[in-house]
Amino acid sequence: MNGAQALLRTMVDAGITACFTNPGTSEMHFVAALDSVPEMRAVLAAFEGVATGAADGYARMSDSPGATLLHLGAGLGNGLANLHNARRAKVPIINIVGDHATYHRQYDAQLQSDIETVARNVSTWVRTSSETEAVARDTVDAIQAAVGPPGQVATLILPADVSWNEGAQPLQAPPHAAPPSPSAEKVDEVARALRGGGRSAILLGGRALREPSLFAAARVSAATGAKLLVEVFPTRLERGRGLPAGERLAYIPELAAVQLDGLKHLVLVDAKAPVSFFAYPGKRSYLVPGGCEVHELAAPSDDVGGALEALVDALDAQTMGIARQPPSRPTVPTGRLNAEKACDVIGAVLPEGAIVSDESLTSGVTLPASTAGAPPHDWLTLTGGAIGQGLPVAVGAALACPDRPVFALEADGSSLYTIQSLWTMAREQLNVTVVIFNNRSYAILNMELARVGAQTAGPRAKEQLDLGRPDVDFVAIGNGFGVPSRRVDTAEEMIDALRRATAEPGPHLIEALVPPMFTPLQLRAMPHALRVLGILPRPLAAAIKRRLSP
Amino acid sequence: MNGAQALLRTMVDAGITACFTNPGTSEMHFVAALDSVPEMRAVLAAFEGVATGAADGYARMSDSPGATLLHLGAGLGNGLANLHNARRAKVPIINIVGDHATYHRQYDAQLQSDIETVARNVSTWVRTSSETEAVARDTVDAIQAAVGPPGQVATLILPADVSWNEGAQPLQAPPHAAPPSPSAEKVDEVARALRGGGRSAILLGGRALREPSLFAAARVSAATGAKLLVEVFPTRLERGRGLPAGERLAYIPELAAVQLDGLKHLVLVDAKAPVSFFAYPGKRSYLVPGGCEVHELAAPSDDVGGALEALVDALDAQTMGIARQPPSRPTVPTGRLNAEKACDVIGAVLPEGAIVSDESLTSGVTLPASTAGAPPHDWLTLTGGAIGQGLPVAVGAALACPDRPVFALEADGSSLYTIQSLWTMAREQLNVTVVIFNNRSYAILNMELARVGAQTAGPRAKEQLDLGRPDVDFVAIGNGFGVPSRRVDTAEEMIDALRRATAEPGPHLIEALVPPMFTPLQLRAMPHALRVLGILPRPLAAAIKRRLSP
Repeated sequence: MNGAQALLRTMVDAGITACFTNPGTSEMHFVAALDSVPEMRAVLAAFEGVATGAADGYARMSDSPGATLLHLGAGLGNGLANLHNARRAKVPIINIVGDHATYHRQYDAQLQSDIETVARNVSTWVRTSSETEAVARDTVDAIQAAVGPPGQVATLILPADVSWNEGAQPLQAPPHAAPPSPSAEKVDEVARALRGGGRSAILLGGRALREPSLFAAARVSAATGAKLLVEVFPTRLERGRGLPAGERLAYIPELAAVQLDGLKHLVLVDAKAPVSFFAYPGKRSYLVPGGCEVHELAAPSDDVGGALEALVDALDAQTMGIARQPPSRPTVPTGRLNAEKACDVIGAVLPEGAIVSDESLTSGVTLPASTAGAPPHDWLTLTGGAIGQGLPVAVGAALACPDRPVFALEADGSSLYTIQSLWTMAREQLNVTVVIFNNRSYAILNMELARVGAQTAGPRAKEQLDLGRPDVDFVAIGNGFGVPSRRVDTAEEMIDALRRATAEPGPHLIEALVPPMFTPLQLRAMPHALRVLGILPRPLAAAIKRRLSP
Repeated sequence: MNGAQALLRTMVDAGITACFTNPGTSEMHFVAALDSVPEMRAVLAAFEGVATGAADGYARMSDSPGATLLHLGAGLGNGLANLHNARRAKVPIINIVGDHATYHRQYDAQLQSDIETVARNVSTWVRTSSETEAVARDTVDAIQAAVGPPGQVATLILPADVSWNEGAQPLQAPPHAAPPSPSAEKVDEVARALRGGGRSAILLGGRALREPSLFAAARVSAATGAKLLVEVFPTRLERGRGLPAGERLAYIPELAAVQLDGLKHLVLVDAKAPVSFFAYPGKRSYLVPGGCEVHELAAPSDDVGGALEALVDALDAQTMGIARQPPSRPTVPTGRLNAEKACDVIGAVLPEGAIVSDESLTSGVTLPASTAGAPPHDWLTLTGGAIGQGLPVAVGAALACPDRPVFALEADGSSLYTIQSLWTMAREQLNVTVVIFNNRSYAILNMELARVGAQTAGPRAKEQLDLGRPDVDFVAIGNGFGVPSRRVDTAEEMIDALRRATAEPGPHLIEALVPPMFTPLQLRAMPHALRVLGILPRPLAAAIKRRLSP
């Protein structure tokens, strides 16, 4: 068999059976090989950012690596932003990047560039396969690197002749090695710290946000009084009615500081010590309060679930009663929509087993509260901050879980980066309901403009944050890509549209017209309000914080 | 003033007065500074690939560097493909890439990545500005690097605090140094070679495709009998009625080989010795025939026009009569459209002074012939092979030349990579007529699939090249982005649509429904036909080549 066939066979034998593709000439033998390896499902994207984000969403929901097929350095570049998000999500991804034939490189033809330099930005593991006989071995190494833990982005560059030459054989990937457990000393240290009195919190991230770990952490919390915190942008958070509910760290650092205020011990479980998303003039970047001791119970490379279980054992907390999220649904709103009402509508109808890909940014500020008591569901977020992730992640999640309803909750500006996702949703008839919160602006940047102290901004600056002129007609665009689309501007219409969308198979798009979440006056007041928050007594500040970002 | 203000002022003082932007939080002070430097026009894009491609198109038509504002590594990644095209086009581009504040980097926040590694893929010059006092100096260095010649991509990474801190002063960029002239020996060597008998050709690329150089080259051709060749993907080719017309090298290497066959001397002027775009199993990559001597009259870093003038002098050819393209228009076609008729329609109506951004790929195979005798116009092509360039380049060209009609001739698949360009066209009310040749497939890949010898491809492979299922409705998408759009499927409708589009100000989109340029039978026969071409007697092969790709 040729190199491409051996690569595909090796992937399929390792359980990797989906690949998100945007091929070019140098990948034609990979494409041709698809017919001889029918177990591999190739899902075509009309833009590489869709392919990489879909691979991420697929991996988040299937717990198996996501794979992509990309065309040289330019194709990898187009996919880079969502690979960045996958890297930050610690999600296993294997990129197959086609390259010119090895003997063609010396001629520096038009499409040639140094692919490895681009790949390094996101990939822990990068290799250029140099001969056909080695392709299967390279593929096995890529899979092992990607799987981790932690999950990583591995990029295998496949020159066209290495792909088309004969003489390759598939290889069996070895079973994944079990990740290390934390030492008994580490577990004891954490148990002592949590038992020792003083305010403490457990910050859960990565794989610690899945059901078994959440229950273990809740037992620890019940036994010690430690607060359960959830990292600001979870890869995949299992939540809803009946599940232990952590408090998600706020995006705005002043609010996160209130959540962390007064802590003596912070225990990290597959999470980083919290830092500000951006730097702001005169503000601290590192958010752990002075005097707080940080303990890393489990690093991302560790057996995260095992570490939490060991801590439960050390605390004799196996039978502790735990706090579970009570069932609740928001009161169904009526009348003219705004962002808060739209969030309540979603909370009112969210079905059991839903997967939510959340890139709603400012419009979704109240979403966590609106959906907290909904039936159990998964919440996937913008892990790396590179917008344009939500729609592709929904594509991948829907392919991984064809029997579950997927919701892509999108800010208007963010959706445009990878709007071509709609075409793949239509092509594959995925059960995705896309909600575009259309406030006709980069609303988050209006907030950030005020926050970074650039309040003196004039009309030319503000124009850079305005997505009106012309207003984007998402219904037309959705229909243009083959997704039945509808515009709503009342709560009643939105409920009706959501019910119809989830009742019918295939994708649907709902454009929800909402004003920006914050008025200009609120934006101007925000820096001052946040400053005040920092000097208020703790209970008052916490109460305000809960109102601002529940 | 702060760093951002000094940077903008330095750029404006150097004559750089347009910047294509997609900012985020770390660029908010740059955005805020726009109001204090009103000479800088900031053009917002809804996706970074639009911004980088527009900067390229702007630079091609303004002969001044194109500038972008991008958001960290992810934003640069999204813009990378079109920066690759700009690099290959030898077009001067200055990227300003915002980064986290210098003191924030140690915390490895979500959006952080190694920006320089991404930048190096496309940039000859990369620097991270490390202090506010140095920003203006860094900006001057970036401008000098970008201007060249040859034009290059320069990337200046601007940390947020370097941007927002006070204490910067603008700097005056020094005048550009004159590029070196070729030595008298080199000119004599070329003159001797061309006079010495034997078949010879002059291959013009880069800046040698502008009017003065074309006239000089035509005199050399008239004096020596050397054939005038044009590189396969010109950055900016001035052509049409009354101008000297070179023969553009074919994309398909077997056809290019016929054009180069039998040459004894090939003179390069701001061009590379021709190589195959891709490698194909068993085919040569280097297309210069054995026994042909290659002479580089002027490298891209040289005074290209001066070199050609020196050659004219050396040949005493100053007063030679030259061959000019006679005026001609295709016969206006009628009836059901196909790609060839659509090209003839364009040739029939192309107005004087038009700028054509050509990314029509297979559908545009006959475009060069259909437009050869049209009134003088500029032709901009896909210089680096990274598709998704045509629409953004049209955006930039229209901003650089507001009084000239711009045509973006697009393959359906290619247009989708940067379809968000339509929004900027609508926002800025640019005089761009977009023609989408919609054949509902990646037709060029169907050709390449046959060409790379993967003829055994089955249905799953072919599905990867199919853009139907669902058909993209470009009229809906165009309207959705605010561009008045219309579908045509007869020649008469297309003429009417083109006339209306050029008569009204602002952008228009015409979706031209055409079957793929090559039938499946032709695709299967192509490799054999091309093989035969190589063994035919030269005049017969040349005649066939002219029919296949005029």
